Formats: sequence, C-alpha cells, structure tokens
Amino acid sequence: MNRRCGKTLFFDQPPSVLGFAAVGGKRESEGPLADGFDLLETDTTFGEKSWERSESKMQALCAELTLQKSGVAAEELDLLFSGDLENQCTASNYTLRDLAVPFVGLYNACATMAEGLALAGCFVAGGLAKRAMAMTSSHFCAAERQFRFPLEYGGKRTPTSQWTATAAGGVVLGESGGPPYVRAVTFGQVTDYGIKDINNMGAAMAPAAVSTLLTFLRDSGEKTENFDRIFTGDLGMVGSALMEELCRREGIVLTNHDDCGLLLYDRGKQEVGAGGSGAGCSASVLCSHILPELRAGRMRRVLFIATGALMSPTTTLQKESIPGIAHLVLLESER
Amino acid sequence: MNRRCGKTLFFDQPPSVLGFAAVGGKRESEGPLADGFDLLETDTTFGEKSWERSESKMQALCAELTLQKSGVAAEELDLLFSGDLENQCTASNYTLRDLAVPFVGLYNACATMAEGLALAGCFVAGGLAKRAMAMTSSHFCAAERQFRFPLEYGGKRTPTSQWTATAAGGVVLGESGGPPYVRAVTFGQVTDYGIKDINNMGAAMAPAAVSTLLTFLRDSGEKTENFDRIFTGDLGMVGSALMEELCRREGIVLTNHDDCGLLLYDRGKQEVGAGGSGAGCSASVLCSHILPELRAGRMRRVLFIATGALMSPTTTLQKESIPGIAHLVLLESER
Repeated sequence: MNRRCGKTLFFDQPPSVLGFAAVGGKRESEGPLADGFDLLETDTTFGEKSWERSESKMQALCAELTLQKSGVAAEELDLLFSGDLENQCTASNYTLRDLAVPFVGLYNACATMAEGLALAGCFVAGGLAKRAMAMTSSHFCAAERQFRFPLEYGGKRTPTSQWTATAAGGVVLGESGGPPYVRAVTFGQVTDYGIKDINNMGAAMAPAAVSTLLTFLRDSGEKTENFDRIFTGDLGMVGSALMEELCRREGIVLTNHDDCGLLLYDRGKQEVGAGGSGAGCSASVLCSHILPELRAGRMRRVLFIATGALMSPTTTLQKESIPGIAHLVLLESER
Repeated sequence: MNRRCGKTLFFDQPPSVLGFAAVGGKRESEGPLADGFDLLETDTTFGEKSWERSESKMQALCAELTLQKSGVAAEELDLLFSGDLENQCTASNYTLRDLAVPFVGLYNACATMAEGLALAGCFVAGGLAKRAMAMTSSHFCAAERQFRFPLEYGGKRTPTSQWTATAAGGVVLGESGGPPYVRAVTFGQVTDYGIKDINNMGAAMAPAAVSTLLTFLRDSGEKTENFDRIFTGDLGMVGSALMEELCRREGIVLTNHDDCGLLLYDRGKQEVGAGGSGAGCSASVLCSHILPELRAGRMRRVLFIATGALMSPTTTLQKESIPGIAHLVLLESER
C-alpha cells in the first residue's frame, strides 16, 4: 500500500527506473556532464529549418533513446507525460505525433520534469500503469526568441540571467526492475515572493524550492543530512544562494545541495550567466548525472527538486510578479 | 482493484463527484445552458484591468464555488489539476497563487478538462489522493489577442471558426459520496490528419475524438448505443459532422452525439461561427449540464470526450499542420 502523509506520497513498492536518456546541444557538449549524455549534437539545428522543429527533433531522439535503453517498445507504454517551454507546449505536441502513446501534456515550466516523473511514479505505484514515461525539453534558440529577444538582435544579458539549456531528458518507470527507485513524491504549491525581474528567475523560484523541501521534511520526518545529495533545478547561482539563506532562517544548514543549473555548465569557462535553466536542464542533469550515480550505487538517497517560474512574456509586460513552483521526487538506489 | 484493458482504465471503486461549478461571461449568460451556471458575470472584465487577470479572476471564482459546493476546504485537497489556453498557462498559475494546494499544471488545449478529470479520477481510484480537483478556463478576449487578432482590430471571422468561451469549470472528486461517478478513463494519442486551417479546428480535432472513442469501445466491448449521450468538446458544427462521418466509415452510426461547442450557444441567435470552443467550453458544459443531468438521474451513462487542437500561433506561421488529441471519461449516475 502507498501511504500519504501530509502532502507527500510514500510508495511501499517503489516504481523502478527502467531506463533513461539525455540529449544535448553544442554548449552542453562542452560542459562538465558531457560524458553522461547519450547524444550530443553540435549542430544545434538538429538538421531542421526552425528552432521549434529542432526542439521537437531533439525530443524525438530523446524518446527513441530512452525507450531503447529501457528495453520498452512505444506500444508497451501506458502513458507518456511530457511538456516544454514553447507556447502551447508544441515541442512535445509535435513530437508526440510520431509516437502512438497515450499522452498527458504538462506545463510547470522548468519544474516539468519533476512533475512528470512524480506523476509517472504515482501511476505505476498506484497500479494505474505498468510502464509510464516522463520527458521534457528546452532549446536555447526557441526560448530566446519566445521569452526574450531573437538571436539576431544580439541582446546583452544581465549577470543574474540564466542560460536556457538545449537539452532533453526522458525516464521510463515500471513495476519491477531498476535500480534506481522512486520512493516518494511531493507536489508543490505555487509561491510568489513578489519578484518581478525576469532576468532573475532563480530568486523567484528559490522560495518554492524551500517550501516544497520543508513540506517533505515535515511529512517524512527526515533531515537534510539523510540524503547524499539534494538537487534543485534550476536556481542557478543567485537562486541557490538564496535558497541556502532561506533554509538557514528555518534552522537548516544545507551542506549537500547541488543545483542542476550549476552542474550542467562550467561557469568559469562557459558564458552562461548565473547558470543553466530550462525544462531540459534539470531533465538532462537527472538523466546524465543523477540517475547514473544512483544506478552505479555511488549515491544512495537523493532528492530531486525541480523548480519552475510560472510567468509568461505577457504577464511580464503587465508588470505581474513571477510565481514559482517546485516538485520533489525522492530517488533511492535500493528497494 | 482497478483494471486496465488496452488503453482504458476501469475503476471498480469509482471516484465520486463531490461537487462542481461553472462560471461564465456575457455570451454564456445568453445561451441555452445559462440556468445551469453557478455564476454568470455580464461584465466580462470581471472587474480586472487586463483580460489575463479577468480569466484568473474567473478561475478563482470557479475554484471558490467548486470547493464550497463540494463541502471541501482548499487544505483538504490533495491535488489540483489545472490548465488553460494562455501562453505558459498563466491563467491557472496566477489563480493558484492564492490557493495553497499542491498544483499539477496541464496543457492539452481544449482537451484539458477531460485530461484533468481523468487524472483526478486515477489519483482517487488509485488511492493516491482522497480528494482531487480538476479545473480549466478560457476567456474569449485573452484568447483572441493571443491566437488571432486583438479585439480592437475588428477582424472578420470565417464561418468554420469557433467562438472561444469565456467560462470555467471545476470538479472535485473524492473516495465516497456522489453521484455521479467516474467509472473509466481513456487517455488519447496525438493524431494529425494534415489540417492546416487554423479557422477550422473542429476538422483537426475530429479524428482524435474518433480515435479515442474507438479505442474505448474496443477496450470496453461497449457499443455507442449503451450510453445516454456521447459528448464531445469542442468540435463545433464542422467537426461534429466530420466525426459522425468518420464513425460511419467505421460502421458506427452515432445517434446520441452532442458537442459541447454546440450546446453552450444557440447558433441561430448568437454569432458564434461554427460553435463554441476553448478549454472552458467543455469544462463549463460538463459542470452546467452533464454533471447536473447525471446527478438528477436524468442521464445514467455518459461519455465525456474533450478534444484539443495542439498547435500554436508560431507553428501556424511555420505552416505546420494541427495535431489533435482527445481524452475520454465515462461518467455514471450509479455506483
């Protein structure tokens, strides 16, 4: 039986990660996690004529690799949860045209991978699906045009701004197999601390990460030091410092915190502002680094807390503040 | 135990509809379902200074009424599934700032209500949530500006185009209570018949509705005449005729088909093109007409098949075709 305590679901028969894959672009191929990626395409167009098609192609390649590495055929999937940053989530929608799989479209911005993984975990643990997949992507060039400026404009970036990853990640969960395992999930609530600077999304998302982490700690009775690593994504440098400060105020000293936005790139050598971001950032770090470490047994217990900034260019023009959200997944290397 | 057959999930302990509410705007107040709405606001701004804020306000009112009629406090909800048509789903995101509830953001265009209701059903039936809520909205003025032209432009509409409803619907499901009950769900697959006319979305979505209906009939062994009514949403006049034609080719004569886009307005008296559309259209028809009929026992078994067109203005400019999706929920008046 699964157990709900507060806002957290604990799975007695934790779903297994059957397989996973990460796909990235040029900048990701130059970053410290490159070796963990399954495919790195230095031609960021992925051979397509628009950035939107490039992103869909990248997702399609990610889906293919994920299924292949999981030993699962598309028709064996009961459900696929996917989403992305494009308006109306078209990167996912158009990818799914060529995958005959029941599709649940998601949008929680850069928190979408944790959202999808948590939903897939619930479906498998609840006996609602034998095999379910979660996938997300983002593409720097598609996101820049949509959220900021067209690349051709050559706009300067502020130091607090983050670099949208050109990357995708996919995970298939099943009833048996693994390791690793999805042990628990906490779906987060929307928080809004009144941040209005669209070039400082880390600050807008940090309170959401803290809120979800505190909820999980309260529900589980765990302490942060019980985990090998607590991964957030994607707070970047500014948001990470802010999260650690907010935790300190709650009496929690985070000594084992890593942020996916800071892991994907080398900020000393790569020009990525305050770090990586985008729905594909935490997804690809999950699949190129976190899950491999768990599978190899080098990490045993890990919290994956993906964070999302829930504004749009329209709400920004309307001077609205930026709501944030974070979902948490507890991953373990042993059943 | 729940049973999966093919792509359909059947619930032996079907979740109960604890309560529901529909909110609409001026045109909806003049339509044939007006009496079934819980709140009709003839000032379509809902007292707000932007159409986006108006939509969030409408969703907030809908959430409040839904919870009130369900006898459930926000803090008693384990999960809320919501989405809308605004870029980055901001109508839902901003509404959820003021509702301290775990939030799963969805996007499947006008199929989002069936998507959310099906997910909520799965969570309750799978023992993953005691109470879960599904909600969606759309606002004519916000959608026109984003998908077509600003209202001030006064663009002419083609006869096949549909009218985005200014409406929201919300449903709370729980383990016991009701009627009605959620007996089965089928999550649909993306279909694409190559339709590129953005003013004929009914045609783009009809194949998805047929595909999901055929899947459900195959999985369940049921015939269409076993149901009091088969509701699609929102195919409008063109898409409905096309759906009935596609069914005929499969040997199925649909004699009990109604489309939410044709129920919400009186096309003879109201200028709504081929009928209503928008995520709030099927949601509000569900909550103002379908669920009340089931609760009163005037209908006993109903299929609710909401359909979505998964393009964006960007993919339209890029001359892409329009993918469609449809999710199905079997609702019954008896346990």
